[in-house]
Amino acid sequence: MALDKTIYIGAFVHCATLTELEICTGGSIGVGDDGKIAFVIKDRNSESLPAGWEAAREVKIKDHGFFFPGFIGIVSDTHIHAPQYPNAGVFGKSTLLDWLNTYTFPLESSFSDLANAGRIYKRVVSRTLSHGTTTACYYATVHVPATNLLADICKEKGQRAFVGRVCMDQMSPDYYRDESVDSAIEASRACIQHVKEIDPGNDIITSIITPRFALSCSTEAMKRLGDLHRETGVPCQTHISENPKEIELVREVFPECSSYADVYDKAGLLTPKMILAHAVHLSKDERALIKKRETKISHCPASNTALTSGAAKVRELMNDGITVGLGTDVSGGYTPSMLAEAREAIFTSRHRAMLDGDEAKLSTEEVLYLATRGGAKVVGLEERIGGFEVGKDWDAQMVSIVGVDSSLDLYQTVGPVEIFGGESWDDKVAKWLYTGDDRNTAAVWVKGRLVHKTSNFEG
Amino acid sequence: MALDKTIYIGAFVHCATLTELEICTGGSIGVGDDGKIAFVIKDRNSESLPAGWEAAREVKIKDHGFFFPGFIGIVSDTHIHAPQYPNAGVFGKSTLLDWLNTYTFPLESSFSDLANAGRIYKRVVSRTLSHGTTTACYYATVHVPATNLLADICKEKGQRAFVGRVCMDQMSPDYYRDESVDSAIEASRACIQHVKEIDPGNDIITSIITPRFALSCSTEAMKRLGDLHRETGVPCQTHISENPKEIELVREVFPECSSYADVYDKAGLLTPKMILAHAVHLSKDERALIKKRETKISHCPASNTALTSGAAKVRELMNDGITVGLGTDVSGGYTPSMLAEAREAIFTSRHRAMLDGDEAKLSTEEVLYLATRGGAKVVGLEERIGGFEVGKDWDAQMVSIVGVDSSLDLYQTVGPVEIFGGESWDDKVAKWLYTGDDRNTAAVWVKGRLVHKTSNFEG
Repeated sequence: MALDKTIYIGAFVHCATLTELEICTGGSIGVGDDGKIAFVIKDRNSESLPAGWEAAREVKIKDHGFFFPGFIGIVSDTHIHAPQYPNAGVFGKSTLLDWLNTYTFPLESSFSDLANAGRIYKRVVSRTLSHGTTTACYYATVHVPATNLLADICKEKGQRAFVGRVCMDQMSPDYYRDESVDSAIEASRACIQHVKEIDPGNDIITSIITPRFALSCSTEAMKRLGDLHRETGVPCQTHISENPKEIELVREVFPECSSYADVYDKAGLLTPKMILAHAVHLSKDERALIKKRETKISHCPASNTALTSGAAKVRELMNDGITVGLGTDVSGGYTPSMLAEAREAIFTSRHRAMLDGDEAKLSTEEVLYLATRGGAKVVGLEERIGGFEVGKDWDAQMVSIVGVDSSLDLYQTVGPVEIFGGESWDDKVAKWLYTGDDRNTAAVWVKGRLVHKTSNFEG
Repeated sequence: MALDKTIYIGAFVHCATLTELEICTGGSIGVGDDGKIAFVIKDRNSESLPAGWEAAREVKIKDHGFFFPGFIGIVSDTHIHAPQYPNAGVFGKSTLLDWLNTYTFPLESSFSDLANAGRIYKRVVSRTLSHGTTTACYYATVHVPATNLLADICKEKGQRAFVGRVCMDQMSPDYYRDESVDSAIEASRACIQHVKEIDPGNDIITSIITPRFALSCSTEAMKRLGDLHRETGVPCQTHISENPKEIELVREVFPECSSYADVYDKAGLLTPKMILAHAVHLSKDERALIKKRETKISHCPASNTALTSGAAKVRELMNDGITVGLGTDVSGGYTPSMLAEAREAIFTSRHRAMLDGDEAKLSTEEVLYLATRGGAKVVGLEERIGGFEVGKDWDAQMVSIVGVDSSLDLYQTVGPVEIFGGESWDDKVAKWLYTGDDRNTAAVWVKGRLVHKTSNFEG
């Protein structure tokens, strides 16, 4: 599908480094008919358009808005359990293990009904797009047809996605599990094959091998998934070290392994293409192993707080040189918004700082980095997404911010960020992060394709 | 101003006790022309209307929505620094004392300009109303005219408010302070007098004596404010024990006092009509003193987390029998929404639970109680607001929630809460708390007067 050559005109903001934003208030970015960035002009007053772009379509920022890379936690929403979306905000006072049995498994099992699955998955993809999530890593369910349907929906709606059939052949309820190791591997192969058919070059959709977590998988199943990973090169995702009781249980169930991380390592799953969600209570040895294996981590602060799992030591992980992104972990997390998740990452880091000292604090710049370039690295797409450079895909969101002279009724539509005048650009970005929501995401593009827009978007 | 007699028809939810919601799915509440609740019918099928109400106006709940008491943290927004609203989300990595000097004092000093003050205060009142805050305790600035203007604006817009001129005669910048103890007391008297003139019976507006915090006030100024409090019966509010460095400094500056709480007690300010914001690091002795004096506390979790002040031990305060409400503490807190603040109270309690054990966790029911009845008790209005009983004022919000069949574009207007079908009423309330925002607050009433509505409200 060829796109119109388009010039995106106005302020743009992206992460230059972990600690610095690059803010170009009078820029232009040209995006070719292949959806890739053809040129970046940082100052329109001093640079002219390249030849051949005079007649290109234009999309202009209004008021105090700006273009920002689409969110790509571990890629944007690394760790969103798509089928759990209807349970967002419903967890009471539960912690991980009882939460799974009370809320999660019964809901997930209903995805054997494809009509039900389609209804919810369509909603999840639309909703995450509306929050500026251009790439998401999804945990689906054990069901092959529903998982393939999620991949189809992502492709149709244009969201870049890693779609994983959940593998779980032990310590799971009878009504919701893989029946045997063989059937589990066969089912996972079927999902990998489906993605190969609908998107052979992984242009937008990628399959991802997804053992739920160590306790849900037999040693044999994990080993076979490790083999499948090595054989196919398909990436992997799972959970690690979320909750003290879970860790204790892993120790009991896998006495032959020296640690939780070692369980995955022994199965051949601890590789550079594995994404580990949570990583709240890792030991020093585990961190060293993860660093050595170049395995990636998805930090899910909203979920970790809501389920009282703990407050991950993100600064320590980053200081160790481990690559970190952000994940919403819906419905453990309450929100499908990566913007809200980035806020939660700041707040969790503040709670860490109360115990560990000021170095633990994450800044506005750092959490925006985790939500874009950090996530891109976690999914191995740092050459394609996460920032605005020539050759990268145009995975972007238009952040819409207006001044306060608008009426409050209008505000219901244009969003909660209020600009009183005199704010610096750093202030505007901070206000967006702290007070903004999906109303401020006027439009969203993936690889140049407009995949979401609100009534505030003209273009 | 006489109102139409109105019957509010449909589901209503309020807090029966600290730990239990009362949910009446087929109820009717009649509100007389005096803005007070005349009758409460919990089940329309088994109870008929009282005589004389057949022709009354009707306002009906649609879809999955419900009526809920207006938020009244410590009364709704006990502790919102109205002039700091433009700085919401702007605090970088600062903590309390440098935050005051870098962000807060320069902004507050600009309220000597009445046009500037009016522009921002109008916005603050409209915005907090739009979030369902029917009663707010405001910290204004040192300026008498601007403080009186805030009281006028609250009266005009119909928000129940406690409006306090901030008193600060020491350790404050030259450009922003009370010049002397005498001028400070005179200025505070002038604001009390103004409220007496515009609302003699404190029908909607109440003046509140507001020493900023111990470090900003000389011993003499606090004593004189204590005298003023005793003389006039006007309530008081201030900050206490927010940040370790602040506490250390209080110890140095007031060596004759045995604790931070004792500073206020010695000034005659620790009374049942004093509201203390924060109370993060109180000692056992201070808690005992506060309990003995029946002094109230405003918990401000978003601010305490954002400024890394600490995580208040709310369970401990409540177990001690101290009355607690919630405050947003904008701009220390990032949000003017009491719904978001209630969420933050839950999350902060989860971080406490990670250290202190499960008992520290606050439930959905408990934070909604703090945001309504708890706040009502804190401001001494528990007989008038906080729940739906005959004789109470109709301070209420219409929570609008629709099913997921609506298009995503519509969702931009109707709000983020998604009901997939089959949710229990407890689930619906939890989803509102965790995923809702101002879009779900379709209309707001104070004492029967409609003070805010969105395009979703018909009536």
